[in-house]
Amino acid sequence: MIVYILGHVMTIVAVLLVLPVIVGLIYGEAECVWFLVTLLGSGLIGLALRSLKPDEPVFYLKEGCVATGLSWIVISLIGALPFYFSGAIPNFINALFETVSGFTTTGASIIDDVEILPHCILFWRSFTHWIGGMGILVFLLAVISMTGGSQMNLMRAESPGPSVGKLVPKARHTAIILYVIYTALTVAMILILVLGGMPFFESVCTAFGTAGTGGFGVKNSSIAGYSPFIQWTVTVFMILFGVNFNAYYLILMKKFKQAFGMEEVRWYLGIILVTIAVIVLDLRKVSAAFGENLRSAAFQVGSIITTTGFSTVNFDSWPSLSKTLLVVLMFIGACAGSTGGGVKVSRIVAVFKAGLNELHLYVHPKSVRKPRLDGKPLDDSSMRSILIYFAFFIIIFAVSVIIVSIDGQDLITNFTAVAATINNIGPGLSLVGPIKNYGLFSDLSQVVLMLDMLAGRLELFPLVLLFYPPTWMGKSRKIAK
Amino acid sequence: MIVYILGHVMTIVAVLLVLPVIVGLIYGEAECVWFLVTLLGSGLIGLALRSLKPDEPVFYLKEGCVATGLSWIVISLIGALPFYFSGAIPNFINALFETVSGFTTTGASIIDDVEILPHCILFWRSFTHWIGGMGILVFLLAVISMTGGSQMNLMRAESPGPSVGKLVPKARHTAIILYVIYTALTVAMILILVLGGMPFFESVCTAFGTAGTGGFGVKNSSIAGYSPFIQWTVTVFMILFGVNFNAYYLILMKKFKQAFGMEEVRWYLGIILVTIAVIVLDLRKVSAAFGENLRSAAFQVGSIITTTGFSTVNFDSWPSLSKTLLVVLMFIGACAGSTGGGVKVSRIVAVFKAGLNELHLYVHPKSVRKPRLDGKPLDDSSMRSILIYFAFFIIIFAVSVIIVSIDGQDLITNFTAVAATINNIGPGLSLVGPIKNYGLFSDLSQVVLMLDMLAGRLELFPLVLLFYPPTWMGKSRKIAK
Repeated sequence: MIVYILGHVMTIVAVLLVLPVIVGLIYGEAECVWFLVTLLGSGLIGLALRSLKPDEPVFYLKEGCVATGLSWIVISLIGALPFYFSGAIPNFINALFETVSGFTTTGASIIDDVEILPHCILFWRSFTHWIGGMGILVFLLAVISMTGGSQMNLMRAESPGPSVGKLVPKARHTAIILYVIYTALTVAMILILVLGGMPFFESVCTAFGTAGTGGFGVKNSSIAGYSPFIQWTVTVFMILFGVNFNAYYLILMKKFKQAFGMEEVRWYLGIILVTIAVIVLDLRKVSAAFGENLRSAAFQVGSIITTTGFSTVNFDSWPSLSKTLLVVLMFIGACAGSTGGGVKVSRIVAVFKAGLNELHLYVHPKSVRKPRLDGKPLDDSSMRSILIYFAFFIIIFAVSVIIVSIDGQDLITNFTAVAATINNIGPGLSLVGPIKNYGLFSDLSQVVLMLDMLAGRLELFPLVLLFYPPTWMGKSRKIAK
Repeated sequence: MIVYILGHVMTIVAVLLVLPVIVGLIYGEAECVWFLVTLLGSGLIGLALRSLKPDEPVFYLKEGCVATGLSWIVISLIGALPFYFSGAIPNFINALFETVSGFTTTGASIIDDVEILPHCILFWRSFTHWIGGMGILVFLLAVISMTGGSQMNLMRAESPGPSVGKLVPKARHTAIILYVIYTALTVAMILILVLGGMPFFESVCTAFGTAGTGGFGVKNSSIAGYSPFIQWTVTVFMILFGVNFNAYYLILMKKFKQAFGMEEVRWYLGIILVTIAVIVLDLRKVSAAFGENLRSAAFQVGSIITTTGFSTVNFDSWPSLSKTLLVVLMFIGACAGSTGGGVKVSRIVAVFKAGLNELHLYVHPKSVRKPRLDGKPLDDSSMRSILIYFAFFIIIFAVSVIIVSIDGQDLITNFTAVAATINNIGPGLSLVGPIKNYGLFSDLSQVVLMLDMLAGRLELFPLVLLFYPPTWMGKSRKIAK
């Protein structure tokens, strides 16, 4: 069954590879040949695997997670081939790093100079963000049909956030609605960028990077070289793509009250506004230009909390307070159900409310008040699953920092490199700051950081399961709930 | 009732202040006058407050926490007076910082040169560690009698670790047994240090600093200037004081199998051995002297995991991997029920086991296996309380780093200063490294770091409650369980 899914995924990747081939043909670039080769290889193997259709197309939670983890590894391996074959990235580990960084919407790069790359390579690099943002399996669900429970198990494994809200009863329709909203917002952004004077090709790539909250740009200076209008546009869209997509669905359904009443979204916007205000105050120390400070503070806060990772200034040179706030934002992340990464605002709010409730219980021991989020009570079992999430997060984080530190870089570099990859942001501080890149790390560290990116994008579990030996022993054919 | 407890605490502090007065008299130091003045003041006010004995000497969990939090603040204010009056520390905030750091067994200092201080001041400084290590309220329980439930509520609020194991049915007897073990170990250590050639006065102070896992020394170079024998002695005793005291009680009761079977203690020793081994390997990069590397690795690992904070080398200059491991150890901390700080090994193990169990459930969805620690199942409600602990820990940590960063120091300084105070260790890295001190921080930052030390020592809750407005509103006279 897992092999059958992988076959489907490979054919989809082959179809998606048509686009960079077309871009290559338009610009008359020889590199597009390699996309064609990868396309054919991936497509043929995929079709072969699909012929192994199992008799019983049912899916359990464990298989859902394993299939998701493996799919992401497979698409990264395939996606890295054009970078490697074309010579754009001569080292395969580096090429894989760039691709994983793309699909997981991290945006951490090992390329020194992106401006010398051909258009088809740049297009593919940004397109991986767009594909990864909403998820390749959600896309799969939108195009093929499967038994009901099976679909949810796949979707649950891939979607960002503690819980998947089924918008409509059928998972397939949910997937289609999500992709429609996603595409519409992306198209709107491309139009506004073109109206603002950005060339069409750059607009498309920038919109892909924003929509997936990825962060790969087509310029070495990221978004710094563009006009204030373009920068504000990108800021607004980054923040929009970090909102729980359920809110957009509710708006489409004209349920405005529900949409604007979503607690997570209100906390998310509140955190953004407060942080921008504090950073603007803090930046007065280094520059008196209020308008410019406001623009870069808003841009950087939007870029970090949504885990996009674009930059307009080198925030590594900002004062200590502002840098600290950005590091805190790195961990908070965007809303559940958005394309952003991080721990997610809803988890933070849930934990915060549980803490307040505990204090309430100390003062009023007989109270039976339960903490609530959006009206739903946060019971012991949902608290437990949040704790498990934090447990894995902290363990993976600590182990990664320890392994990466073998390279001997300074603590801030190691700490923020892991933070920026596991939270799918991209740039960190010090040697991996916004004007640096990840090329300085050894192969071992790059592999660890790749696994961190995948773990972060897939909310830890699907990836952890792949490394848990009993997963591969025996068959567990029990019905998932 | 709370006032009555505070009165008791003040008289005890007055009694304890007799010791530095005696030390001052022996060495003929004029500074001992200030201890006498503080002693009389504290004693008289304490006696006056004790006369306000309430009709109903019963205690609930909330009052227990509030009394504990306030007691620690009061003893710190009193304990700081001799430092301030004698002119040893001319700024009151600095004096308070030093005293809070002493009582909470943190060992973070703002004093540049300790070797010029008179003996009575040095003695008091180290004695605060010894008092704070086991807890002033545990001491109070050992000397006065109270209603059963009330005692446990006080003890629960002050004892380090997620749960207080009552060793014997009566809380008062438990408190006495704990103090007997504590005193016996301290005396044994003083004897061995004296036999090893350390002057008596320095042995006493060093033993106090080790027993409380504090870290104030009587030399500017901490323990670096002493012989290898002394350094190994301190290493062994630091590790011994980081063990759950229940193990010693079980050994006293000749229940060796139970004592050596304690899971937390085995994990604790395992972590220590593995970390020492890795650091010794890592240190080969900078020095070929195996014996010396082993000694400094063992010393530093013991010092950091038990949150003592003594140093024999400037570990801030160690290679990146070793430094990273030390930072991870800072957060792990010692065993519950020891005098050490940090998150505590048992919490880490519990969370780790819960994570493994979750993976097990994914692979075997129908399994009913529950994670266990020392035979006791970790149910949803104990998981919830661990999550609440982490929630407060992370929130306090993040807010503290943000406020401290206003001073404008570098990120490593701010991050490790908060880590070293909330975990009650003492030295951090960079500008608060082992050969630096905390004098560089502004008053605001020092106050924040003091609150972090208190929060860390009292396991967060009693302190957080003091800052939760409803604590002070109305009366909640409900029976605690």
